[in-house]
Amino acid sequence: MTHGSTLAAGPAPGPHRSKSRHTPVPFTAVELRDSLWAPRQRSVRQRTLPFLFSQYEKAGVFEALDVHLPPGPLRVPFNNRPTTPVMYWDSDICKWIETACYTLATQFDPALDARLDEIIARIAKAQQPDGYFNTYFIRREPAKRWTNLRDWHELYCAGHLIEAAVAHAQATGKQSLLKVMCRYADYIATVFGPGDAQRRGYCGHPEIELALVRLYRLTKERRYLDLARYFVDERGRQPHYFDQEARRRGEGPEGYFHGTYEYSQSHVPVREQRQVVGHAVRAMYLYSAMADLAGETEDPSLVAAGERLWADLTGKRLYVTGGLGPSARNEGFTDDYDLPNETAYAETCAAIGLIFWAHRLLQLDGDGRYADMMELALYNGALSGLSLDGEHFFYDNPLASRGNHHRWQWHRCPCCPANIGRLIASLGEYVYSAGPDEVAVHLYVQGRGRIAVAGTNLSVVQETAYPWDGTIAIRIDTETAVEFALRLRIPGWCRSARLAVNGTAVDVAAVKDRGYAHLKRRWQSGDRVTLALDMPAERNYAHPDVRADLGRVALKRGPIVYCLESVDQEVPLHWIALPRLGQIEPRFEPNLLGGVGTLLATAAVQRSKDGAGALYAAAPPDVEPIIVRAIPYHAWDHRDPGEMNVWIREI
Amino acid sequence: MTHGSTLAAGPAPGPHRSKSRHTPVPFTAVELRDSLWAPRQRSVRQRTLPFLFSQYEKAGVFEALDVHLPPGPLRVPFNNRPTTPVMYWDSDICKWIETACYTLATQFDPALDARLDEIIARIAKAQQPDGYFNTYFIRREPAKRWTNLRDWHELYCAGHLIEAAVAHAQATGKQSLLKVMCRYADYIATVFGPGDAQRRGYCGHPEIELALVRLYRLTKERRYLDLARYFVDERGRQPHYFDQEARRRGEGPEGYFHGTYEYSQSHVPVREQRQVVGHAVRAMYLYSAMADLAGETEDPSLVAAGERLWADLTGKRLYVTGGLGPSARNEGFTDDYDLPNETAYAETCAAIGLIFWAHRLLQLDGDGRYADMMELALYNGALSGLSLDGEHFFYDNPLASRGNHHRWQWHRCPCCPANIGRLIASLGEYVYSAGPDEVAVHLYVQGRGRIAVAGTNLSVVQETAYPWDGTIAIRIDTETAVEFALRLRIPGWCRSARLAVNGTAVDVAAVKDRGYAHLKRRWQSGDRVTLALDMPAERNYAHPDVRADLGRVALKRGPIVYCLESVDQEVPLHWIALPRLGQIEPRFEPNLLGGVGTLLATAAVQRSKDGAGALYAAAPPDVEPIIVRAIPYHAWDHRDPGEMNVWIREI
Repeated sequence: MTHGSTLAAGPAPGPHRSKSRHTPVPFTAVELRDSLWAPRQRSVRQRTLPFLFSQYEKAGVFEALDVHLPPGPLRVPFNNRPTTPVMYWDSDICKWIETACYTLATQFDPALDARLDEIIARIAKAQQPDGYFNTYFIRREPAKRWTNLRDWHELYCAGHLIEAAVAHAQATGKQSLLKVMCRYADYIATVFGPGDAQRRGYCGHPEIELALVRLYRLTKERRYLDLARYFVDERGRQPHYFDQEARRRGEGPEGYFHGTYEYSQSHVPVREQRQVVGHAVRAMYLYSAMADLAGETEDPSLVAAGERLWADLTGKRLYVTGGLGPSARNEGFTDDYDLPNETAYAETCAAIGLIFWAHRLLQLDGDGRYADMMELALYNGALSGLSLDGEHFFYDNPLASRGNHHRWQWHRCPCCPANIGRLIASLGEYVYSAGPDEVAVHLYVQGRGRIAVAGTNLSVVQETAYPWDGTIAIRIDTETAVEFALRLRIPGWCRSARLAVNGTAVDVAAVKDRGYAHLKRRWQSGDRVTLALDMPAERNYAHPDVRADLGRVALKRGPIVYCLESVDQEVPLHWIALPRLGQIEPRFEPNLLGGVGTLLATAAVQRSKDGAGALYAAAPPDVEPIIVRAIPYHAWDHRDPGEMNVWIREI
Repeated sequence: MTHGSTLAAGPAPGPHRSKSRHTPVPFTAVELRDSLWAPRQRSVRQRTLPFLFSQYEKAGVFEALDVHLPPGPLRVPFNNRPTTPVMYWDSDICKWIETACYTLATQFDPALDARLDEIIARIAKAQQPDGYFNTYFIRREPAKRWTNLRDWHELYCAGHLIEAAVAHAQATGKQSLLKVMCRYADYIATVFGPGDAQRRGYCGHPEIELALVRLYRLTKERRYLDLARYFVDERGRQPHYFDQEARRRGEGPEGYFHGTYEYSQSHVPVREQRQVVGHAVRAMYLYSAMADLAGETEDPSLVAAGERLWADLTGKRLYVTGGLGPSARNEGFTDDYDLPNETAYAETCAAIGLIFWAHRLLQLDGDGRYADMMELALYNGALSGLSLDGEHFFYDNPLASRGNHHRWQWHRCPCCPANIGRLIASLGEYVYSAGPDEVAVHLYVQGRGRIAVAGTNLSVVQETAYPWDGTIAIRIDTETAVEFALRLRIPGWCRSARLAVNGTAVDVAAVKDRGYAHLKRRWQSGDRVTLALDMPAERNYAHPDVRADLGRVALKRGPIVYCLESVDQEVPLHWIALPRLGQIEPRFEPNLLGGVGTLLATAAVQRSKDGAGALYAAAPPDVEPIIVRAIPYHAWDHRDPGEMNVWIREI
């Protein structure tokens, strides 16, 4: 096995080079030593992983792997409530494996490694002679294999199995799971495709497409890329596979629960899609795969489709937190500007999917707006899904709560915990990209990235208190002097930045292009760059068609979206309004919530006197000044339970 | 039969005098000749009555009277949709009869009179030998008589039958329906009561209580008052009748659909009730009966209970329109200050029930605040339920709509149309009250009331354009000069009023007591009083615990609540805000909506430029001035369908 912290890493996990403009510097080569992410990674390793393992054990998720045993009861008692084995438990196991692998790569743990070997052996044992693997169908419904791609997550689970196999190989160097899953992928390639004896199908829940691209990048086997492309290209074509499949089941397509194939983004072929619709996680995973394929195949029609969908999402259908998919009904999108706060679904997995997509578009295109969005979703809509203790989770992430929304320890659909786990455990991968003669710094996080550029191994060392402070000191440690462009992101939220190289000021405007300052020079070991990003507290206003936010303001500072929580205020949240010109003071509070930046704002209280007063009156309520404390949105619901609010009335 | 327009009316329908302070001058003695109510009364007579008759015929409601025929199908095709015979159709027939009677009394119609005779004959024929009458149970479920008072509306229907019988006798002088229903009431009195062989029950839906008081007032038979009192006193006592009854049905009380007996205000005895809870119509009907009984029995504990409930409703649980019961779930009340606008249920029948209650408290107590509330609900939350053409209805009356809420012609529960019909047809009864030596004018409506006071028959003649103008000229026509106090209501919304008798100014402050100016003098025929009520357009603000209305303003002028409708504006409603100090100009528009007062307000538009613009920005949207037109809330949804909004953002 390869112990990550001793890895010298190149720009890609192997000799393969994507046709994308940049390649992420892998998580194995990036150490985070900051006060926010490093503790979160530790918490994922020390708390989330064992906690989820034990929850899965208790719920019977791992037991599902033992397909040679007779199937257990359909209702398993768990936490005093029955839980039903579901068709996508394989995916939860796999996201747990992925998370475990990422933590192994950065901090080896022989017990965890052995546990992985044991689980993988059970998976290998359960694989069918033809290569098929799905614990639910093997054990419970063998006759129903591939009979309902629309609803039953079979290829989705295959995708997560493949992602786990890739992660396991990358993190440990072992081929055990990879071999099993290559066999499975090869089998899938015989089943699906344009041939007469093949099924022209694809999964109702995209995932296998991006997994196959990962598998291709690791193995260099072109057939995996081709299969991914087949699934993406076939999607939404007429005659519609899901119609045909429903007829074969004797159901007819008209009984489809969700009514429209927009739910799974298969209503029209992907290149004809102009709006982000349907189930939000499915959308993000599909668009991520489209970006992957656009990079690998240099297909301008896929690039154009992705750009249109990006503009639609970010221009009309995204929460200020980077959360997305407002409706619980379809776990997804509704209408333009329909972004209710209290009922916001904004699934943690959807924000994670947005990070996946943005990260891929960033490699493809290099524009800082993708990094801006990746950062926004990371610090807000995604991070909110995981508690500081690593053992409590949000599935839906509303932007306002009356006090009845709280973190949980188990969910009937336990997809989010391991998804946020694998994201945080692999976060290093999102910090840097490398090209042939350039290094891009996308995220500012104290720590070190080891990067090979222009044939030289070097380190980029960041010292910063970001995101609580906008000053970043960067040092280049290099074996030999080397010429390359260091691209430093100037975030979209930053209105003024100062830059210096070895103490000499650089005119940011002169070197800035598409969201990055380009510092092209012959870098010597010990060269220092100082970047100071102005980071005042700011008011954010929504487009006037976002009815939920009209007359309201959201507070941001840097990439962090803030919220009010009851526990911090002297009065009920609904009495609090912000005067348009009131003072807002940022502070760092080391003893609060693991150490966070807060905002102290001068606010106006419209209170009722002694809880009384007329129900209606000709004069507005009296206004009194008050100081309120806002905390980062991602850190809410860690203290006394109460109300929460992101969009505050302005007065 | 007695032709109403020729009736000389005393303060009560007969020699009976209530112990209440005042008695309403009956509808038979009051003519309305104004531009708002008179056309509405005409529309009820000419349109609503025949329209509902034909709808009832088509839906099989009248056919249900023919209990000797075998029961028809349980799903009757109607308007291309199946409708199911329901247990409370008798009540709809009876409200229709009541409405018809009130119109007969003010404008005799031989065809309608004959139709009533025919319907009454069918009712008489259907009555069972023991006096029982309920078409549903006689025909479909004879074995289930009195087995589920909690849910099945049996005594509720009896109440409406009795009210119809009283109205028929008052309006036509005929005893045909009254005799049938006295027999039924006498039978009910044998079934229910404290005796060993009797049931200690009462209806889940209050109604029979107030009906029995009406029957008592007409017949002077004390036993009807006693039965009403029994039902009210027994309500909510332990052991709980609904529990016992459920056990007798073999169900057990724990399966109760609504979970709590608050739904039917039977959770505790009525004198212990401190909050308005549960189904809003049930609450209003119960409280109305309590007010009736308080007046008839001089029971201070009932007076106190009513006052507490009134303070709770009007202080914490009432819409600005006089609508009530925010939730569709229980058609009723939820929490203090929970008054959402778009999802407001605010059933038309509940506002009508509030008018019934307020009218009764007003007779009992004489305080103008009851008249204020009666007027508010009348002009807004109740009147909104009936269209100008008399053939379209609202069941629920939200205070905001995205454009998907429209008047209908039939409802699975058609209770509201005939309820608003009977209210409007009998509206004259709400205008005046008389006491031994005083006459109170509660509502200002152009027209004439014929009143006997201090032994003299006189007329009070109002000339006014109220509610569109605050000036009221009152003339006294009297056979002989007579001394009495003329009490003129000074509405709570009026901040400045001027008063003159025969041209001589009277100091309003000096003669005002509890909402009325008292003009005690020896009145001569031809005496004139001029009352000028200042009636500027006003902003209304809600208590700061009404979350839905925070930062919002509702426009009122006089008793009329205004709203914005899309059809009147140049921009979408959600872009419109009102500056706190902007101009608001009242106008009368004779050609709009049958002639209504409107408000032209200087507003601010926060618009998106060309439909584009960033989803989030650091600056608020640009603001441009615009003039918006507000129309009376009761008149909305008569033109191009669109959005509507009562509570407008303030900027």
